[in-house]
Amino acid sequence: MMYIQINPELEMPIYEQLMMQIMIGIIRKELQDGDMLPSVRSLAADLGVNMHTVNKSYHQLEKKGLIQIIPKSGAVIRTISRRLTEEEQSRVSDSLKPAIVEAIVLGMKEEEITRLMKSIIQKMKEE
Amino acid sequence: MMYIQINPELEMPIYEQLMMQIMIGIIRKELQDGDMLPSVRSLAADLGVNMHTVNKSYHQLEKKGLIQIIPKSGAVIRTISRRLTEEEQSRVSDSLKPAIVEAIVLGMKEEEITRLMKSIIQKMKEE
Repeated sequence: MMYIQINPELEMPIYEQLMMQIMIGIIRKELQDGDMLPSVRSLAADLGVNMHTVNKSYHQLEKKGLIQIIPKSGAVIRTISRRLTEEEQSRVSDSLKPAIVEAIVLGMKEEEITRLMKSIIQKMKEE
Repeated sequence: MMYIQINPELEMPIYEQLMMQIMIGIIRKELQDGDMLPSVRSLAADLGVNMHTVNKSYHQLEKKGLIQIIPKSGAVIRTISRRLTEEEQSRVSDSLKPAIVEAIVLGMKEEEITRLMKSIIQKMKEE
């Protein structure tokens, strides 16, 4: 199992931090198709967080089609690559939009945002 | 005053919708440096939303340095362009990151995200 680090002081809610780390694990191939995630109960205990929090992360990841929850025993990573559905495309677009509006209104140029985006992807894959 | 449209059915909180629309107004130059925004009370009445909601949007916009609140009379748009501070850069980066992680984990390529980003910027400036 990869190393997961939760920081309760961050502005990002804990269930989102957990989701992000699992997604980054998938991107870095530390988590691969078929790998097991621990049960909600045991991961919650390991991280010292509420079971509802882990449960929420798992359900959101399942909704995105990235894991399959196996009741009482955990979850399995599912990363069969396929084309994004239109709904997924528009969800990605909706979540990019507020950040881009903020960047532009504060005076960033399109090329600067592209550069920032590339460096975020680079770091995400490396760290 | 530009036309503001609030949709309570959207997932995005109303204060954020209002902030976004004012920021897009600034990007499209419908709102320019020195322009007045209405008082919290009158904008809340016009939009049919709670005064706290408008107040929250105004305060967040002031924190970003985009408006200056004039107690009891409204707010003034402030768009003196300058280099982004490091804190602003890292805030933009923090808000881009979750959307980018999701895009990558769902199988989008860097070039596809760049293309999506450009089309978001294009639409934002045109509509």
